[in-house]
Parts: sequence; C-alpha cells; structure tokens
Amino acid sequence: MQDIESVALQAELWSVAEELADAARACILPYFRQIGLSADNKDRDGFDPVTIADKAAEQVMRDILNKRRPQDAILGEEFGNSAGTSGLTWVLDPIDGTRGFISGTPTWGVLISLNDTSGPRLGIIDQPYVGERFCGGFARAEVIGPHGTAALQVRDTSDLSDAILFSTFPEVGTPEERAAFEAVMREVKLTRFGCDCYAYGLLAAGHIDLVIEASLNAYDIAAPIAVIEAAGGIVTDWKGGKAHNGGRALATATPELHAKALKILQQTLS
Amino acid sequence: MQDIESVALQAELWSVAEELADAARACILPYFRQIGLSADNKDRDGFDPVTIADKAAEQVMRDILNKRRPQDAILGEEFGNSAGTSGLTWVLDPIDGTRGFISGTPTWGVLISLNDTSGPRLGIIDQPYVGERFCGGFARAEVIGPHGTAALQVRDTSDLSDAILFSTFPEVGTPEERAAFEAVMREVKLTRFGCDCYAYGLLAAGHIDLVIEASLNAYDIAAPIAVIEAAGGIVTDWKGGKAHNGGRALATATPELHAKALKILQQTLS
Repeated sequence: MQDIESVALQAELWSVAEELADAARACILPYFRQIGLSADNKDRDGFDPVTIADKAAEQVMRDILNKRRPQDAILGEEFGNSAGTSGLTWVLDPIDGTRGFISGTPTWGVLISLNDTSGPRLGIIDQPYVGERFCGGFARAEVIGPHGTAALQVRDTSDLSDAILFSTFPEVGTPEERAAFEAVMREVKLTRFGCDCYAYGLLAAGHIDLVIEASLNAYDIAAPIAVIEAAGGIVTDWKGGKAHNGGRALATATPELHAKALKILQQTLS
Repeated sequence: MQDIESVALQAELWSVAEELADAARACILPYFRQIGLSADNKDRDGFDPVTIADKAAEQVMRDILNKRRPQDAILGEEFGNSAGTSGLTWVLDPIDGTRGFISGTPTWGVLISLNDTSGPRLGIIDQPYVGERFCGGFARAEVIGPHGTAALQVRDTSDLSDAILFSTFPEVGTPEERAAFEAVMREVKLTRFGCDCYAYGLLAAGHIDLVIEASLNAYDIAAPIAVIEAAGGIVTDWKGGKAHNGGRALATATPELHAKALKILQQTLS
C-alpha cells in the first residue's frame, strides 16, 4: 500500500481527479439542454431520471481509472462497486442533481471523491456549464471559475439568526425529517432551495452557512465533505457522526452553527 | 413619436438594450461573491436586501439612457420613474433575485425591458456570472451563453403530468396563493424552487414548462414577458389578463398548459 501522506502521491491523485473531471465535463456538456433528452426512471416510487450522459460520463471516468489507478477501488452511482488493492476508493457521481439537469439549471454537478479508510480525503464539485470547479483536500482548497481562481474558506457566522440555509427541495426527506429541517429553518435569516450539490460549493466558498439534507447516497456527499472540510467547515450526520456513507447530512461553516443546528435537529427528531 | 414598427428603430433599441446589459454586467460582477457585502434592509417585515451593486448598475443604465434615449421614460427598481415623450418606457431591474445574489447562486439576473403602451416589446434576462443572455422581442428570440448562441423556442408540452414547474420559493405568496400554486404542483411531473428570473429564461429556451409566481413588481416580470412571448410562450396573471404591471404571473410553454393551470388556480382561489 502506498503512503497517502506522500506529497508526490497526493499530486498524482489530484492529477487523476482533474483528468476525471475534465473527461466528465466533455462527455456531459453535449447532452445538457438537448431538447427531448431521454430519461429512464430508476425509482418507480418517485421521479429520479438518469440520462445517457450520466452513464457515459461514469464509463469514461472508469476507463481513466482503469488505466491510471488500477489498484484503487471504485464506487459509482451508475455501475456500482469494483474492488481494489490500495485501500483507496474513488467515489463517482457523474451527474448529481439529475432533476436540475433535465430542467436546464446550472446547479447540478460532477462529484468526484477519493476516500481512504478514514473517509473522503480529496473532493471535486464540478459544474460543467458554468465552467466552475470546487476542489478540496490534501492541503488544497480553491475554486476555479469563469472569472478566475479563488481560495475556498468558510465564513465565520456563529448565530443561526445571521445564517443562510440551503436544501435541494422543501420536502427534505420523510415528514419527520422535514419537520426537523423546518425547526432549523425557523431560526435562520434566509432559506433557499434548488441548488443540488452546488450548495455545498457555496458553503465552502463562504457565501452560505448551512446545508441540511436527508436520504443521501454515499456518492452524493463524499466529495462535498472533502471540499467543505478543506475550506474549514464541518459535515456530519444529524447525530454528529460521520456522514460519508450517506443518509442525513448537516454541513455548517462553523462549530457554533453546527452545535446549534444539531441540537434543534435532535430535539425535533426525538 | 417614432414608429416602433420601423426596423431601423428596432435595431437601435436592441443596440441600446445590449449596451445597458453590458454596462450592468460590468458594474455588478465585481460585487458578486464579495465576502461581507453590505446589504440594506428595504423591507422591515421581511428580508429584501439590496446591494451597492443594485444601485450602481441602475445608475449606470440611467446614464446611458439619458445620453442615447433621452426621449424615453424610465421605470427602475431603485430610483423610480422618470418621464419621457416618446411613449416608450425602459423598465429596469438591475438585480432580480437579490436573495440569490447574496447567497452566491448563479440564478439572479439583470432585467431590461422596453415597453410601449401595449406592454413589453423587447426584453433581456442577463446572468452576468454565467455569461448568459436571453433576448426576445422585435422578431428576435435567442440565448447567448458560454457555449454559443441558440434560438429560443418553448417546447410543446400539453399535459400537466409531463410538465416541469418552477417558482422562486415554496411560500409563493399569501397562504391562499400558496394553496393555489400547490394545487397545480400536485398535477405536474416535477416542481423546483430557487431560480429567480432565470426560470423564465429556462421556459423560453424549452427546458421547463411553467413558472407561477405572486407578489411581483412590474420590473420583475416585464422582461420575462417579452422573452417568453418572443419564444412562443404565454404570460398572464392568474385570471388570464395582462401581467406586465406585476402581481401574480402564470407563464406557460403552450396554450394547453395555460388553460389547465389557469383553471386550477381559479378554482382554488374562488
């Protein structure tokens, strides 16, 4: 097993991660906003479209990993698990926010994470249409966008009454989860919906203060965890434990906001 | 009074409109995503921030109009009305979606409309950060974006069960207005929130099917009306009347969707 703390290996892993993001971007963009895009229905109980682009981009990323990092495992949204020998796992969600994607909004993203046994160590949230990439991990925390590059740094909000909260849709999850979310919502300055994974990028960049979601898969949250932690923020589940296996996530800019939101979520759920 | 149907005048008016949008874009972008942006609170009952950028951009646009079209009236969000002699009015909302703006999302926009006595004739919805401009009116209907130029054309959805519906926030307006909105929401395939004026651009470009909002000002809806009508869509109030003076708006891709949504809104409100 290679030493993950080696600077040379970390540089190599960033190089692989950016090649994956570039390839996914090139693969997905021609399908974005194409009229009459076909969408399978993966979830018979709801509406969870997955596009041709989703599958094609994951295949392209797997091909690159098979060449450059055959020793690593892969966990992908579309094609599941493949085993590795290095102790490292690439976690891929080629299009996070397929509902946003089919609606034409620029808030879906390509999520790429590299996890070791402790959790996410490197993450990319890429928005191909805007041309914006949030990168965090291995001492790197920056966003490269259409108007240049900036450091990622969460802001220092400590009171919920000053905070901006995001979630993807107002239902959040089960009725119980929605009630817990709304208990936090009543304490914050502003709540906005509809941003998919882009909200985690906004938190890492210091524009918003909290993201609260439920019913996540591991590949929905691994990359956001790496990006937000690199920017100085916190991501846990709704009990303060690790969130990288999915489920409920509470992401905050500061420990103060984390403690306050966690208390409300726990009081409401119990 | 000049003949608004003159092709030469229409070209001149488009040239002015694009100069306004370019100037607003240059004025606003340096303020977008600046940490610690100051925001006045215009509305003591709620949260309606207005930034330095909002005021500066409207002033820049007014300066251009004073030079190039001194004969036209101006209605602006920040500095109110100024009279003209031509029968034409420029309607300006320098930052529509200030809540989105302060949250860092790329869904706020600069709204520019030229109205004659019949209503909006030319409209621009500009998203400076993405670099995307939806233009409609005087036989023009196109979007210029980071990946090129495309014609604007609404899609042909006729059943609510196939439709994607947008609104900016789940409250929509009063409790009665929210209930009417939710009655339509129960019939559609997918509802998304959080896009501010950008949703009207997505409708004009054929990606979504309905936008329903309430409590609008004239400057919130004039430009979207021009853009959507140029793309073949329909915008009225919730009774089927003209919407360009603000209030409640129902924007749809097709007459079939318009009739179905209007019926539900009216049944729920009565």
